[in-house]
Amino acid sequence: MFTPGKKDIYLLKCLFEQELFGNVIPFWSKHSPDRINGGYYNCLNRNGDVYETTKHVWLQARQVWMFSKLFNQFEPKPEWLEIAGLGIDFLRKHAVRQDRRLYFSLNEHGAPKWIQRKIFSECFYIIALAEYSRAADRPELLKEAREQFEIVWNLAKDHSQLGRPVLEGQIPSRSLAVPMILLNVIEELSGGKPSGYEQEIEDCIKQLLLHVHEDKKTVFETVGMEGQFLNTIEGRLLNPGHAIEAGWFLHQWATILSDNELHQTAINMIRWSHERGWDQKHGGLFYFLDYKGHSPTQLEWFMKLWWPHNEAMIAHLLNYSITGEQKDWELFKQVQEYSFSHFHDDDHGGWFGYLNREGDVTHNFKGGPYKGFFHVPRSLWICFKLLEKLEISS
Amino acid sequence: MFTPGKKDIYLLKCLFEQELFGNVIPFWSKHSPDRINGGYYNCLNRNGDVYETTKHVWLQARQVWMFSKLFNQFEPKPEWLEIAGLGIDFLRKHAVRQDRRLYFSLNEHGAPKWIQRKIFSECFYIIALAEYSRAADRPELLKEAREQFEIVWNLAKDHSQLGRPVLEGQIPSRSLAVPMILLNVIEELSGGKPSGYEQEIEDCIKQLLLHVHEDKKTVFETVGMEGQFLNTIEGRLLNPGHAIEAGWFLHQWATILSDNELHQTAINMIRWSHERGWDQKHGGLFYFLDYKGHSPTQLEWFMKLWWPHNEAMIAHLLNYSITGEQKDWELFKQVQEYSFSHFHDDDHGGWFGYLNREGDVTHNFKGGPYKGFFHVPRSLWICFKLLEKLEISS
Repeated sequence: MFTPGKKDIYLLKCLFEQELFGNVIPFWSKHSPDRINGGYYNCLNRNGDVYETTKHVWLQARQVWMFSKLFNQFEPKPEWLEIAGLGIDFLRKHAVRQDRRLYFSLNEHGAPKWIQRKIFSECFYIIALAEYSRAADRPELLKEAREQFEIVWNLAKDHSQLGRPVLEGQIPSRSLAVPMILLNVIEELSGGKPSGYEQEIEDCIKQLLLHVHEDKKTVFETVGMEGQFLNTIEGRLLNPGHAIEAGWFLHQWATILSDNELHQTAINMIRWSHERGWDQKHGGLFYFLDYKGHSPTQLEWFMKLWWPHNEAMIAHLLNYSITGEQKDWELFKQVQEYSFSHFHDDDHGGWFGYLNREGDVTHNFKGGPYKGFFHVPRSLWICFKLLEKLEISS
Repeated sequence: MFTPGKKDIYLLKCLFEQELFGNVIPFWSKHSPDRINGGYYNCLNRNGDVYETTKHVWLQARQVWMFSKLFNQFEPKPEWLEIAGLGIDFLRKHAVRQDRRLYFSLNEHGAPKWIQRKIFSECFYIIALAEYSRAADRPELLKEAREQFEIVWNLAKDHSQLGRPVLEGQIPSRSLAVPMILLNVIEELSGGKPSGYEQEIEDCIKQLLLHVHEDKKTVFETVGMEGQFLNTIEGRLLNPGHAIEAGWFLHQWATILSDNELHQTAINMIRWSHERGWDQKHGGLFYFLDYKGHSPTQLEWFMKLWWPHNEAMIAHLLNYSITGEQKDWELFKQVQEYSFSHFHDDDHGGWFGYLNREGDVTHNFKGGPYKGFFHVPRSLWICFKLLEKLEISS
C-alpha cells in the first residue's frame, strides 16, 4: 500500500477544486446560457464568444446533467438549477421527435437541423432528465426518463429502426460504445440502484466484456457478435481513451454489485489501454491506434484530445483508490500533469480540446459540435471527490 | 510572357513521366488487381501489402477510368485494358443496386457493405463506364453510362431520394462538390463535346459560380440557395484544394466553350485559393480553413493531404499555359517541389497521402478508403501532357 504525502493530496484537491469552480464553471455559466431562446450556445471561442449558434443535443443534455449533478451533490445553488432548467425545457420542447427519437442538432430557436442514425442523443437526454428531476424535485421527469430508456433499449437491439441499411456484405459486429453508454445511463437513471434493471445491467456487462481480450491485453472498439477479433480496419481499431472510460464505468458497477472480479477487469482495461495509448515520445494519449500497428485510417489518430485525458484521470485515481499501488497513483499524476499543462487556459477560462501530437493547441475554441460542459467538469468533480476521500483516509 | 528554360521544361517532363510510369503505375498494377474475385484491393500498405480487403466503389471506379484513360491516350497496352476490365466487370456485377443507386463499399467478393446518402459512387461509375467503353470499343457501355447519368442528374436535384431527412431548421444550401463533379462527369461522358448536354452544362457552371465570391476573393464550399454567404461553420468552410480542383474543371469547359471570361474566373479561383491555403510557415496546402479565421471544426484541418497538391499542380500549370505569367509558373514549381519531396516514396513506389502540418508522414499506407489510383496518376498524366506541349511550343 503506497500513500502519497497528505500535503500532496491536499494540494491536488485544491487544484481540482479551483480549476472546476474558479475556472471551468465560470466560463460556461457566463457564456453558454441562451436566456432568450432557451438552451445553451455550445460553440464558444477561446474567449467565450459564440462562433456558431447551432445547439447540439448531446451537449445540451450533458450540460443539464452536469449542472444538476453539481446542484445535487455539491451545493444547491439556485443559479445552477436555473441553468439546468434552461436546457431541460429547451430539450423537452424541441429535441424530441413525435416517435420519441431525438434530433442531433437544433438551430438557435429549436428547429431541428439533423438526426443521427445513432442512439446517443437519446442516452444523454435520459441522464439529463433523471438528474434534473432530482435537482428540481420533479418525479414526473424521472418517469419520462424511464420511458425514454425503454425506447432506447429497443432501438439499441435493432439498427434497422434507426434507418441504417443492413447489407449482406457487412460483418455483423458489436460496438463498445453501446453497452458502455447504456451502463452509464442505467447508473444515472437508477441512482446506482440496480433494482428493476438487473437483466439490462447483466446484459450490458456481458456485452462490454466481449470487447476485453485478456489474451491480447487489449480492449477492442468493435468485435464480432460472439466477441471474436475481426482483422479489419474496424476490428483492429483501438481508442485508448474510450477503453479507459469503459473501465471506470465498469468500476462503478463493480462497486455497486460488490464484484471484485469485475474490479480486476476494470483495473486491467485501464492499465493496458494507458500503456498502449500513451505517446512515449511526446506524452499524452493518442486518439486512435491499430492493434496490428497499421496506420489508423482516421486522419486525426495521432492527436491528443482533452476527453481521453479527463477519463484517464478519473480511471487511474479509481484504480489507485482500489489497489493502493504506487503505479496507479503515478499514472494519475502523469495524466494530471499533462492535462493541466496542455489543456488549461490561464487567460480566458475553460479548457482547450485539441492538440497535435507534439502537444500544441490546434483548435482554439472551448466548445464545439462535440465539446461542451461535460468531460472536463465531470472529471474535475469526480477527482475532487476522490481526492477528498483519500485526504480523509490518509 | 514568361518562358522557363527549354531544358527546365524537358527535365520536368521527364520527371513526371518517370514518376508516373516508373513509380506509380508499377505499384498499383502489381499490388491492387484481385484476379480471383475481380476488382482491386485499394487498401494497400506502404510496401503494397493488403491491410483491408474491403473494396471502395469510388476507388474501384476511378481506377477503371484511369487505366482506360492511359490506354486510350498514351499507349494501348493490353495489360492496362485487362486491369480496367477487372474493375468494370466487378462493378457492373456487384456495385449497382436494383434501383441503380450504387453502393459505397463491397466486400472482397462483391457483397455490399455500405451505401452513402451521396451521389459520388454513381458519378465515378459513369466516368469509368464511359472511358472503358472507348478503350474496349464497347458502345453499349457508353449507353449505360448515359442512362446512369440521367439517374444521377435526378438524384442531385432531390436529396430526399437519397434518404437524407430534410428538416425545418436546416438552412437550405448548395455544396460546391455537386456541380463541380457533375461538370467533370459530363466532360468525361461526352468526350468534351457539349452536344446533347448544353442545358446541364449551363446549369452546372451557373451553380458552381454561385460559390465564387469576387468581392471576397474566395471560393466557398457551401453557400445559400442564391449563392449568399452563410455565417455558419459550414458556410465559412474553405477547402483550398477542392476550390483549386473546381478551378481547373472550369478551365476545361472554358476551353471547350471558348469562353475567356470563364478562363479568367478559373484563374482567379486557383490563385486566390492557393494564396489563402498555402501554409507560409511549413509549406503545403492546408486541408480546411475558416473564412473568418476561426478554427475549423474538422480535427484534421491543418494536415497536408496529397490530393490538393495533385490538383494544384494541374491547376497552376493550366493557369500558366493560359496566362504565360511567371507567377503561375512559380506557383506550379512551388507545389511540384513540395509534392515530390514529401509524398513520393523512393523505397516502395506510390505516394504517401497524409502529412502533419510540419510535413512529416502521419499515415504510411499508399491506398485507403479514400485514396486509390486516381489523383496521383491523373495529375502526373495531365502535367506530363501539358509540359510536353510547352516543350514543343517553347
